[in-house]
Amino acid sequence: MQISEIGANALIDRLTASFEGFDNRDDAALFDLKGMGVTATHLMLEGVHFDLRYMPVHHLGYKAVATTLSNLAAMNATPAYISVAIGVTAQWEVEDLETLYKGIRIATERFGVKLLGGDTAPSVAGFTIAVTAIGSADPDTVVCRKGAAPNDLICVSGNLGAAYMGLKALEREQEAYDGSSDYKHDLGDRTYLLERQLTPQPRFDIMDMLSLAGVKTTSMIDVTKGIARDLLALSQASGVGMKLYEERLPIDYETASMAEEIGINVFSAALYGGEDYELLFTVPLGFKDVIEQMEGIAIVGYVTEPGTPALLITQDGREVELKEQE
Amino acid sequence: MQISEIGANALIDRLTASFEGFDNRDDAALFDLKGMGVTATHLMLEGVHFDLRYMPVHHLGYKAVATTLSNLAAMNATPAYISVAIGVTAQWEVEDLETLYKGIRIATERFGVKLLGGDTAPSVAGFTIAVTAIGSADPDTVVCRKGAAPNDLICVSGNLGAAYMGLKALEREQEAYDGSSDYKHDLGDRTYLLERQLTPQPRFDIMDMLSLAGVKTTSMIDVTKGIARDLLALSQASGVGMKLYEERLPIDYETASMAEEIGINVFSAALYGGEDYELLFTVPLGFKDVIEQMEGIAIVGYVTEPGTPALLITQDGREVELKEQE
Repeated sequence: MQISEIGANALIDRLTASFEGFDNRDDAALFDLKGMGVTATHLMLEGVHFDLRYMPVHHLGYKAVATTLSNLAAMNATPAYISVAIGVTAQWEVEDLETLYKGIRIATERFGVKLLGGDTAPSVAGFTIAVTAIGSADPDTVVCRKGAAPNDLICVSGNLGAAYMGLKALEREQEAYDGSSDYKHDLGDRTYLLERQLTPQPRFDIMDMLSLAGVKTTSMIDVTKGIARDLLALSQASGVGMKLYEERLPIDYETASMAEEIGINVFSAALYGGEDYELLFTVPLGFKDVIEQMEGIAIVGYVTEPGTPALLITQDGREVELKEQE
Repeated sequence: MQISEIGANALIDRLTASFEGFDNRDDAALFDLKGMGVTATHLMLEGVHFDLRYMPVHHLGYKAVATTLSNLAAMNATPAYISVAIGVTAQWEVEDLETLYKGIRIATERFGVKLLGGDTAPSVAGFTIAVTAIGSADPDTVVCRKGAAPNDLICVSGNLGAAYMGLKALEREQEAYDGSSDYKHDLGDRTYLLERQLTPQPRFDIMDMLSLAGVKTTSMIDVTKGIARDLLALSQASGVGMKLYEERLPIDYETASMAEEIGINVFSAALYGGEDYELLFTVPLGFKDVIEQMEGIAIVGYVTEPGTPALLITQDGREVELKEQE
């Protein structure tokens, strides 16, 4: 059904029918919050953040929510609400938007947040989605990028480079479909990589695990641009140097296998691929034993004195200074 | 300066240097809120909501903030914070973004809100700006679209159609500049209309005036799509009929003069032009005398029984049912 055939109110009704307790027809949305508020907005643009030729629409809805919530995980905050603003091009039909909202709903249910409302506008230049998350934080346990101190351990959750390799698998499939490559494989054996690309998981579970174990994180960021750039951001915000050991980077077997298959250096994928949505954080050295016992957290380096640079120590022992690059 | 020449952190520093108290380098932004929270997001897309050929960039920044805050005015809420997410195309330079942020800053200062943070992404398909506003409301005085009751008076602040006529003036100027029209006038004598198009004012002042006079509004919306459509939204949300009198529509002399000059029916401009950002609201009949004494508020109709339609009563006495149309 064409979007122009359905009124704005009827469209909102259709899209939000399965969202429990949604009842907002107003200009703005009301919400309740305990404690200190936290908010983040993530803007995703067609052709930059996603390619609708190989990004299924329900995954786009899911991913837009999950990646926004990841910002709150990176502050050790608890998400409560989201609102969704979309710019819709003429080729989108009502059913496509329903599929998008299905993905949004799955994410809201998984992460326990409520849809507050949003904004729907026509777009003449690509599909646009901006998700705003609102939640709360405890001032005593909120974690910022600033706070890393010399000798703190640098830790990262999960593994790195898998989402990037998932993207490469999707791109290769698309090229085969377009006829611009003679690749014949199917995507079935790259399920894990595709999941990492299409349905990232904000790591609230990691913060829960650390909290239960009494581990205090001194600084934190989520890995969106690749650990090399996100580590530099931590280093700059905290005003300290850092040493990151390439050989310590946690890399899944599937990531390495795919990298080898397509001739990409797997460490480059892990360092610069991005979209991992893992947590990169620092803890005081005293927690070393506790962290080492934990499943799913790797110690990848340590914090050095103020005035020293952020360094990557390569596998062959060279020191490479991490620099900001757009 | 090219945006690629400057690091992400240095860019944020430059853009936010003149925002008092801005200090956010984190994944999400912290805020304090008293009472019930209120939030709204407004997404503006190049080619749909603005044309950069005749929308000066600092006005775009200002307007994006002002129009988002208007949503909070329409709930009788008090704005406190904004965050700004932008998608930036390759032709934008650092100085352009500084100009945009200058407009944003002027709006934050005028309306007493604090910039929390945001998201900056590259865009391959038009400039994109999404502003999220967060504020607070008093549960006893918050006003929704739902709540209008039979015999309530329908009121609107300011005047209608001026922003649309401002747009027409800008479009005509652009056509002359392109050489596609032989129009020779300058814009100097259309200042008021241009102001209404470029620097809309969320009408917090009207809510203050009503509050001081003890007037209770039963339902409210801001006029963004034109009073005809926004009245219909009030009517639908409240489940009542409405009668809107065309002859009662408040229209500025400049609007009428411009409409005549370019051969547009001024009542059509007032009914359907949109972007007025005035407040359309209902009050119990008992406040009639108080409202009639007030400068800048017009009584344009009244609420009818549930089950009756939303009607426009034209100047020649015909009844036209208002219908939703995209």
